[in-house]
Amino acid sequence: MATMTFFADLMSTLFERGPFRPSRKAFDMESIGPEIDELLSGVGEVSGVRLARDILSQYQAMDEAAKRAFFEHLASRLDLDADEVIKAADAYRSDRSAKTLHRLTRAAEPRRQELLRRLNQAPGATDWLVRMREELLRLLPESPELDVVDADFQHLFASWFNRGFLVLRRIDWHTPANILEKIIEYEAVHAINDWQDLRRRVLPSDRRCFAFFHPAMPEEPLIFVEVALCRGIPNSIQDLLDDGHQTLPEHEADTAVFYSISNCQEGLKGISFGNLLIKQVVEELAAEVPSLKTFVTLSPVPGFNRWLRAQAEERPEIETLIEQLQSREPEAVSEHGAVLRGLCAQYLIEAKGNYGRPIDPVARFHLGNGALLHDIHALADKSANGWDQSSTVMVNYLYDLKQVSRNSERFMSNGEVLTSKQVRQLLPRV
Amino acid sequence: MATMTFFADLMSTLFERGPFRPSRKAFDMESIGPEIDELLSGVGEVSGVRLARDILSQYQAMDEAAKRAFFEHLASRLDLDADEVIKAADAYRSDRSAKTLHRLTRAAEPRRQELLRRLNQAPGATDWLVRMREELLRLLPESPELDVVDADFQHLFASWFNRGFLVLRRIDWHTPANILEKIIEYEAVHAINDWQDLRRRVLPSDRRCFAFFHPAMPEEPLIFVEVALCRGIPNSIQDLLDDGHQTLPEHEADTAVFYSISNCQEGLKGISFGNLLIKQVVEELAAEVPSLKTFVTLSPVPGFNRWLRAQAEERPEIETLIEQLQSREPEAVSEHGAVLRGLCAQYLIEAKGNYGRPIDPVARFHLGNGALLHDIHALADKSANGWDQSSTVMVNYLYDLKQVSRNSERFMSNGEVLTSKQVRQLLPRV
Amino acid sequence: MATMTFFADLMSTLFERGPFRPSRKAFDMESIGPEIDELLSGVGEVSGVRLARDILSQYQAMDEAAKRAFFEHLASRLDLDADEVIKAADAYRSDRSAKTLHRLTRAAEPRRQELLRRLNQAPGATDWLVRMREELLRLLPESPELDVVDADFQHLFASWFNRGFLVLRRIDWHTPANILEKIIEYEAVHAINDWQDLRRRVLPSDRRCFAFFHPAMPEEPLIFVEVALCRGIPNSIQDLLDDGHQTLPEHEADTAVFYSISNCQEGLKGISFGNLLIKQVVEELAAEVPSLKTFVTLSPVPGFNRWLRAQAEERPEIETLIEQLQSREPEAVSEHGAVLRGLCAQYLIEAKGNYGRPIDPVARFHLGNGALLHDIHALADKSANGWDQSSTVMVNYLYDLKQVSRNSERFMSNGEVLTSKQVRQLLPRV
Amino acid sequence: MATMTFFADLMSTLFERGPFRPSRKAFDMESIGPEIDELLSGVGEVSGVRLARDILSQYQAMDEAAKRAFFEHLASRLDLDADEVIKAADAYRSDRSAKTLHRLTRAAEPRRQELLRRLNQAPGATDWLVRMREELLRLLPESPELDVVDADFQHLFASWFNRGFLVLRRIDWHTPANILEKIIEYEAVHAINDWQDLRRRVLPSDRRCFAFFHPAMPEEPLIFVEVALCRGIPNSIQDLLDDGHQTLPEHEADTAVFYSISNCQEGLKGISFGNLLIKQVVEELAAEVPSLKTFVTLSPVPGFNRWLRAQAEERPEIETLIEQLQSREPEAVSEHGAVLRGLCAQYLIEAKGNYGRPIDPVARFHLGNGALLHDIHALADKSANGWDQSSTVMVNYLYDLKQVSRNSERFMSNGEVLTSKQVRQLLPRV
Repeated sequence: MATMTFFADLMSTLFERGPFRPSRKAFDMESIGPEIDELLSGVGEVSGVRLARDILSQYQAMDEAAKRAFFEHLASRLDLDADEVIKAADAYRSDRSAKTLHRLTRAAEPRRQELLRRLNQAPGATDWLVRMREELLRLLPESPELDVVDADFQHLFASWFNRGFLVLRRIDWHTPANILEKIIEYEAVHAINDWQDLRRRVLPSDRRCFAFFHPAMPEEPLIFVEVALCRGIPNSIQDLLDDGHQTLPEHEADTAVFYSISNCQEGLKGISFGNLLIKQVVEELAAEVPSLKTFVTLSPVPGFNRWLRAQAEERPEIETLIEQLQSREPEAVSEHGAVLRGLCAQYLIEAKGNYGRPIDPVARFHLGNGALLHDIHALADKSANGWDQSSTVMVNYLYDLKQVSRNSERFMSNGEVLTSKQVRQLLPRV
Repeated sequence: MATMTFFADLMSTLFERGPFRPSRKAFDMESIGPEIDELLSGVGEVSGVRLARDILSQYQAMDEAAKRAFFEHLASRLDLDADEVIKAADAYRSDRSAKTLHRLTRAAEPRRQELLRRLNQAPGATDWLVRMREELLRLLPESPELDVVDADFQHLFASWFNRGFLVLRRIDWHTPANILEKIIEYEAVHAINDWQDLRRRVLPSDRRCFAFFHPAMPEEPLIFVEVALCRGIPNSIQDLLDDGHQTLPEHEADTAVFYSISNCQEGLKGISFGNLLIKQVVEELAAEVPSLKTFVTLSPVPGFNRWLRAQAEERPEIETLIEQLQSREPEAVSEHGAVLRGLCAQYLIEAKGNYGRPIDPVARFHLGNGALLHDIHALADKSANGWDQSSTVMVNYLYDLKQVSRNSERFMSNGEVLTSKQVRQLLPRV
Repeated sequence: MATMTFFADLMSTLFERGPFRPSRKAFDMESIGPEIDELLSGVGEVSGVRLARDILSQYQAMDEAAKRAFFEHLASRLDLDADEVIKAADAYRSDRSAKTLHRLTRAAEPRRQELLRRLNQAPGATDWLVRMREELLRLLPESPELDVVDADFQHLFASWFNRGFLVLRRIDWHTPANILEKIIEYEAVHAINDWQDLRRRVLPSDRRCFAFFHPAMPEEPLIFVEVALCRGIPNSIQDLLDDGHQTLPEHEADTAVFYSISNCQEGLKGISFGNLLIKQVVEELAAEVPSLKTFVTLSPVPGFNRWLRAQAEERPEIETLIEQLQSREPEAVSEHGAVLRGLCAQYLIEAKGNYGRPIDPVARFHLGNGALLHDIHALADKSANGWDQSSTVMVNYLYDLKQVSRNSERFMSNGEVLTSKQVRQLLPRV
Repeated sequence: MATMTFFADLMSTLFERGPFRPSRKAFDMESIGPEIDELLSGVGEVSGVRLARDILSQYQAMDEAAKRAFFEHLASRLDLDADEVIKAADAYRSDRSAKTLHRLTRAAEPRRQELLRRLNQAPGATDWLVRMREELLRLLPESPELDVVDADFQHLFASWFNRGFLVLRRIDWHTPANILEKIIEYEAVHAINDWQDLRRRVLPSDRRCFAFFHPAMPEEPLIFVEVALCRGIPNSIQDLLDDGHQTLPEHEADTAVFYSISNCQEGLKGISFGNLLIKQVVEELAAEVPSLKTFVTLSPVPGFNRWLRAQAEERPEIETLIEQLQSREPEAVSEHGAVLRGLCAQYLIEAKGNYGRPIDPVARFHLGNGALLHDIHALADKSANGWDQSSTVMVNYLYDLKQVSRNSERFMSNGEVLTSKQVRQLLPRV
């Protein structure tokens, strides 16, 4: 414990480094190019930290055009040499040794990877490299040739943000305000309106929030999940989030509901944390609140309405339904609840895209994690967004830690959507 | 600050994971092989943490033969396919895109790298992977074909232990005992005899000790350096370390002497930290103790006596000197001090090995860092070891942060040994 | 440092004790009376913690009538015995020894003091005892005979909340939300409207907030002060607090303005912290921001308008002024600014109450602390409250640490109000 | 949790204050006397911190004679006025109000108490006041008239070191070295020989050590207890402490043995912590290690041999026994084990002193706490000290939290020594 706090202290070093100040000196690739070469050619790290800091400062002060030029420099000038790779692979084929392997490994790695590693020597650099990729991703649509640079970012980040380096942390009302402020900002599923709303989500004893952090970015959550402890499975997100909510004594809760999961860092796109987060939180909660028996999500169905409209072209009864729902009256839904739920079941189970996977992204995520399609509710999200994307329908995916591994394998191998009995019964009988 | 301590808390998660317990179940490669395949084939990390933990536990319980089999499995079965690399490089040559690059990157990386990354998902795994490589290094002399496995460890560790992820920490008498105990254990230059000896090195206000840590191994220093704050440059290590030492008021110190630097982790061999550590400590001390003007080492000369004996074959005057020194009487040294220092200067400046670099490893390290050969002292280390390796001679290397970058470049490009005037004057006039 | 965090850990014990749960069992003084006797008679603390916890739980569940009965029990049944005091004093007079002194000390202390000390053994009790006194103070107007109980609370708290046990802590945007929430709640001078308002007061680099805490109540600030770092002395509180405020680079600030100081705990009424807080914050800021030369308040003048109205009865020109100010138009103030400032100077310097001290409570506080009346501004607080209490006038009191001690002495001995030259010049010439 | 670490941070302020430097200026009571008067007369705390710091610095630099003069000043010049007490008590008798009570309270308190409270305003002062009393206690035998000063120290410390302000902390191998060093120094029962010995007492998973700390003295343990987790009740301290000890898996332990409890601060003599410490540690351990069923001490019997020798005068059979034991051969004890244990039972149960309490101080302590005399072992402490004081006999006192309150009451009211059946059976039948 004391060692821990000893180590906690360690972290202050990282923290105190503070953010970079953008450089004020004039610059362009003519000035930054030689610095990059120097940083890369440097034997050891003699002046590396200074150079890295300098390059990052200059980068930050660049306008969009200059940044594009910077990335183009990385794409064209710091690429690998395919001929050299082929030679090195040839050599390794005929003589497998550390030396030939080392040569091959170096040859097959674009030099920009080494540049990124050396830039990371500067204090606080990890955070800035994540932001750098965020900007690169924004430039990609117009400069698709930069995708090779992004490939290197992604390769490196996958190694740096390895699960073994992440730290799970509970977020609650004792959390520093600067972190909480980011939770408000990054919430991507059910917007947090203000600090009172946030307070309702993290303070009551039947609410939980957990986030992953990386030690080199201690002020930036990577992903977080919000959980409600309930008696039974709730069938409406508004019931969970509304102001008047009555706090449930912790030991009376039998169900943990994951009602929101948000990735925080655009610059970490493609590095997957959600799966691990959910499972670790299930384990934490199971240990902390022994009365919990069921772990489910209450999830949106973002593609349902779009699919419904597409179906309508061939199925006139759906067209009628869509018209009736246009009033956005709860009655319209309650009247056709069973039909709507059945259609949603059909959508989730039968509407397949690439590799035979469901076209619904949320379904793909949870089923890929090994969850089971447990239940479908109408009138579950009466917000404007809920009407827009899924006509108020929401879904429970069930996480049974004993089954997730097997479930995931079945889903991954053949795209099979595992469902509960009650969901199967929703499907229209043929 | 509070965020820092918030984050400090984060770390407890890492810490509390605790060490692995070696598995008790019977095992061999027949059982572990399929688990490795499963871990590697796993889409996402569904059951990855469990599998990783399981494989690491089994590994730990293995005897040496089984471990060798394990590494051979990695070497032979999880290698890369050179033909595939060539094909992928060819494809990338004709069509440079993220897709072809991704294919090439994957092809050119032995699958054991991905295995190590996935093993690292298990709690506390980083520490165990470092230990795993330590054992691999011990097996290498007898199983040189495993060097390809070591190449992958080294590649991965260079990325994971990037400077940007390390944390500098002062070690003092407030440091937890379990960390201090490791300082005693890892000290490699001037042995720390017991806790009283340690206390003398970290408690007085004219003593400092700093170490690098990695957040995923909070209880393991990676490298540490011991410093004495002095008035003037000391010319004897015993004067520094002896019991009776009178503490100097901090503000009277004008010189910081780095008298010991020790790498702690065999398993991180080849990942260089020393250069960065010294420079960061110089910066810290310069800020903390403004009266400090000079930053030097007091370093051993491990290869001097060996070189001297070799020289003796051709230079009879050296043979005589060696004989006189055999008494190990201080007087013998003081009598021939100037000659001895001159010979040492010659050894350090002229005795070159690979790439035209000095054969003395300590000289190579500090000169490579950009330090300058500042002074040479006789009767500086009167310990048995001091007599054995260098006939009591020790050396000051000077770190002038404004010069190190240029110095290092010159040294690296042509092996030139930069020296102070007083050292040059020691050289025998021709 | 590590010891510090070691000790930091210590605190968790205190913290984790958590709040009391009010007792659910039926109770009245018949049940609680014997427990009090038992707690007091207990030799040592054998079952003290349990009894203390029990009594506090019961107290918390009481309604107002029961609480009054509880305090009356303390007043009447746990008083001291004056006859015994006289006997003990007599004995001490004739034989001064530890034994006779001990007897006298015990006799002269109402037994309720020992009760409070023993109640404090229960985890988290200090906080609850502070709240208990808060409730007692509310009962006092209707039950003046309970003032003897309050006297004992105050005596004990003065010892427990001794300066030596308080901890100064900066409050900023990294502070945990539960603490910040209390800053919003307790701000007593210029209300903090919401979290954005709070953010503007603690996040920018030219803003500071400091609070005193007591280790046994780690989640409760005792008093806090808000500071703005400025270039020159500001003459308007709105300029400081307004949304559009431009952040000043820290090193350009030459003046620290204490614009709000709030006591947080009703239950600690009469225990003075403000004086010490200001002085310690002056010291901290002087060390942290060397460019600061001037430390002043920007303070309200709560009694000014009341005094003005009273003066109007005899001074018709004031009556006219008051009428003109009723429009609450800034122009009305600017037109008569000099007159208004002169009258305020007169009010602060000449309007005296008990012991020849100024009747203005804010003036009394700062002058008593040894500050100097430095300047008076009109149109300085244009809020409704500013118009109400002082017709927009505000005052700077100057803290010159080298002078405060002497100033305070002079003020305390003869009520002399020390003023700057510019304030003296505001006074109407006779 | 984050609040906790927020608060942990708070503590650094206290810590960083650092120790006082003894004053170098010449001084005597002529210089310090007026400062004391100034500190006491100071209205509020205007210059209090500075004065307090100054007086404490001067005190520290005093030689013994000057310190004696200092305390005599306190005794004679800062006493209470008994006549005034009588008047005030008289006034309170006829008019019970806060005002008259306040007057009485002030009158009945020697002014030196207020001096100590004001001295405590200086940073780090609490620690120094504890040391000041330690020195006072050393002067008492030669200057018994200073006992009135000590009475005031004790009165104040009893309030300041109230249980509610103490923090229980586990001491283990992660504890900072400067704290551990004090554990070695303060151990008063079974000396800790060196760091290896300490390590054996705090590192193994079947060993525990807990200490109380006060927030204002974070580097000074107040009292600590060492515990061994065992299978069954051990009958020899050497078995517990010896080097070769085999660590017991925690969950196999059924008995927690408190084998050493040491008060650390001479200056807190008479402020009792031990009782509370044992009980809180019993609670902690019961929660942490559910397999524990029995909580006993393994205690010395310091007065046994002295009593035995006294008995020998009248009981020749004891004289013979004493002679046989003089060989200090284990055989001598084993031969007469039953007799020796019986005599010890007799000693503990029947040898009474003041107030009918046992003359053995350890027995008095544990029985007063409500423990039960559980068992008596011969050959239990074969150290020189064990032979010296109790002919190797040691005792188990049993703490049964459900009984301690009742036990203690019975013991306190009539001195009854509660014993187990097996101890009663040791008593010689009459």
